Amino acid sequence: MAPTINDIRQAAERIKPYAHRTPVLTNESLNQQVGAQVFLKCENLQKVGAFKFRGACNAVFSLTDEEAAKGVCTHSSGNHAAALALAARMRGIPAYIVMPSNAPQVKKDAVAGYGGRITFCEPTLEARESTLDRIRLDTGASVVHPYNDERVIAGQGTAALELLEDVPDLDVIIAPVGGGGLLSGTSIAATEIKKGIRVIAGEPEMADDAFRSMQAGEIIPSVNPKTIADGLLTSLGNLTFPIIQKNVDQIVTVSETGIIASMKFVWERAKIIIEPSSAVAIGVLWEKKIDLRGLKVGVIISGGNVDLKKLPWQN
Amino acid sequence: MAPTINDIRQAAERIKPYAHRTPVLTNESLNQQVGAQVFLKCENLQKVGAFKFRGACNAVFSLTDEEAAKGVCTHSSGNHAAALALAARMRGIPAYIVMPSNAPQVKKDAVAGYGGRITFCEPTLEARESTLDRIRLDTGASVVHPYNDERVIAGQGTAALELLEDVPDLDVIIAPVGGGGLLSGTSIAATEIKKGIRVIAGEPEMADDAFRSMQAGEIIPSVNPKTIADGLLTSLGNLTFPIIQKNVDQIVTVSETGIIASMKFVWERAKIIIEPSSAVAIGVLWEKKIDLRGLKVGVIISGGNVDLKKLPWQN
Repeated sequence: MAPTINDIRQAAERIKPYAHRTPVLTNESLNQQVGAQVFLKCENLQKVGAFKFRGACNAVFSLTDEEAAKGVCTHSSGNHAAALALAARMRGIPAYIVMPSNAPQVKKDAVAGYGGRITFCEPTLEARESTLDRIRLDTGASVVHPYNDERVIAGQGTAALELLEDVPDLDVIIAPVGGGGLLSGTSIAATEIKKGIRVIAGEPEMADDAFRSMQAGEIIPSVNPKTIADGLLTSLGNLTFPIIQKNVDQIVTVSETGIIASMKFVWERAKIIIEPSSAVAIGVLWEKKIDLRGLKVGVIISGGNVDLKKLPWQN
Repeated sequence: MAPTINDIRQAAERIKPYAHRTPVLTNESLNQQVGAQVFLKCENLQKVGAFKFRGACNAVFSLTDEEAAKGVCTHSSGNHAAALALAARMRGIPAYIVMPSNAPQVKKDAVAGYGGRITFCEPTLEARESTLDRIRLDTGASVVHPYNDERVIAGQGTAALELLEDVPDLDVIIAPVGGGGLLSGTSIAATEIKKGIRVIAGEPEMADDAFRSMQAGEIIPSVNPKTIADGLLTSLGNLTFPIIQKNVDQIVTVSETGIIASMKFVWERAKIIIEPSSAVAIGVLWEKKIDLRGLKVGVIISGGNVDLKKLPWQN
C-alpha cells in the first residue's frame, strides 16, 4: 500500500493548480556554520505555511465527486487541519476538524479562518479518535489521516520531488519526523529519483519514538513527549513505519537547545520564519552528531506557523 | 548622470555571479487583506539581507583593478555598510566603514562579520562626512555613497528588472524611499521596461522629507526624523531626486501603526522576516489611502535585518 514514485508524480500534477512551487533558498552563513552546502526547500512558504497542504490537497482532489460531496474530516494538532480546511474550501466541500483543546491559538485561528468546522476534544489520542468517529458516522465525510494515508504520503513526497528537480545532485536529504508522512514521502521520492542519496530524519530527543522504533524494529509509541517542536509529538503509523524502515538511513535526535539555536539562526540569517519542528531538521546539521562536511544537503523546511508573541528566545 | 536601463542591464550581468536572484512570493491572505494581487520581490532574502548588496556589488565590481586595490569606503547606518563590506571581501579588497555609534547592534555585528573595517562617529551627517573624508585621504579608497551614486542606483534597479522579468504585466510597483537609491533605480527600470506602469513610493509619515520635497519641487532635508523604519531616515540626494521627480507618480506616507501592522502581518502570513523599512512599502497597500483595488502590484521588500529581541509587538 506504500505509494510509488508514480503516485508522487501524479500527486504533483494534481496539486499543481493549488499549491505553491516553493523556492529553494541557500544561505552562506548557514553553510559556514554547519560546514555543508545546504539547500532549504521552503515549505514554510507553502499555502497554510506548511508542507501539510500538499498531502491534504492531494487527498481532497483524489476523491470522486460523490465522495467529495460529503466532505472530509480529520483530527490534527494544527497544520494538517488548516491544510485540509483550505483544500476542502478550494474544492467547495466541508471539512470537519477535530482539534485538541490545547492546540496553539494561532493554529486554531488558522483552521477557522480557512473555513474548517472545528470540534474540540481532550488532548488524548483516544478522545480524538472517538470524536472523529462520531463525526464520520454523522456526516459520511471521508477521513483524511494526517500521515497514515497513502494519498497524504504521496502529496508530501512532492516537496522532495521539486527539490531534486531544482538541485539534482544532492548527497543527502533531511526531513523532520513526527508521524512520518513527510519523511516517508520524502524517502520514496528521493531514493527513486537519486540512487545512493542518503535520507536522514531529524527528531527531538524529547520525542524520540521514531529513533527507538527504528532500533527496536517495531513501532514504539511516544508517551507524553514534551518538546518545543509541537508538530512532532505524534508516533509513527503502520503505513509510514515500513516505508521509513526501508528507505531512511538514519534518524538523528536533536536537543531542545539545538532546536532553538537552529531556529534562531535561520530567522536571523536566512530571514525566513520557521517553526521549531522545521528547526529539528536544521538541528541535525547544527549539532554535528553525524559527519556531513562538504556535502550537498537538502533540508525540507516543514513549516512556519509560530506564535510571534511566544518566541523561545524571549522571557 | 542618471543611469539608463542599459546601465541597469549591465549591472545585472555584473552582479549575477555574486548576488541571489531572489524569489517573488505571493500570499493569498495578503491579497485579500489589501484587495490587490501582490508580488513580493524578496530582497530580504538577498545577500546581507537587503537590496543594498546589489548596488554595492555593482559599484565594487565597476572599479578598475588599480582603483580597487586601494579599497572602498562609505558611511552608512547599516545595510549598505554590510553590503559594501561583503562585496569588497568578494573582490578581495578592504572596505572602510564609517558608522554612527547608535546603529543597531545587529547591523554593527553584520558589518564586522563581513570583514568591514569600522570607524564609529557621532550620529550626525557632518560627523559622518568629515570622518569619511579623513579615511578617504588616508587610504585613497573610492567612496561608494549609499544612494547618491549612479553605479549604486543602477545596481538597485536590478531588483525591479528581475521582478518584471518574472511578472511582466504589473500595473504598479512600490518601493520604500529613504535616500532614494532603491526608488530611483526601481523607477528607471520599471518605466523603461513597462510603459504606463505606476511607480509609487512608501515613506514614513514621521520621516516624510521625500513627500515634502516632491511637493516643493526641491530637496527638503529631513530634520531629526523619528520612525521605526530606521533604514529610511536619510534625505534625498541631488542625483536621486531628479530621477524620482521624473519617474515616480506618487509618494504615499504611512503611519507608524500602519508600518508595524504591515510588518506583523507579513511575518505571520507570508512567513518571511521583513524589517520596518520594507513594511513601509506594504503599508501603502495596507492603509488604502490610494485606490489600488484589483491591480497587480509589485512590492520591493527591501530587507530583513531586525533585532529579534526587540520586536515592535512586544513590550
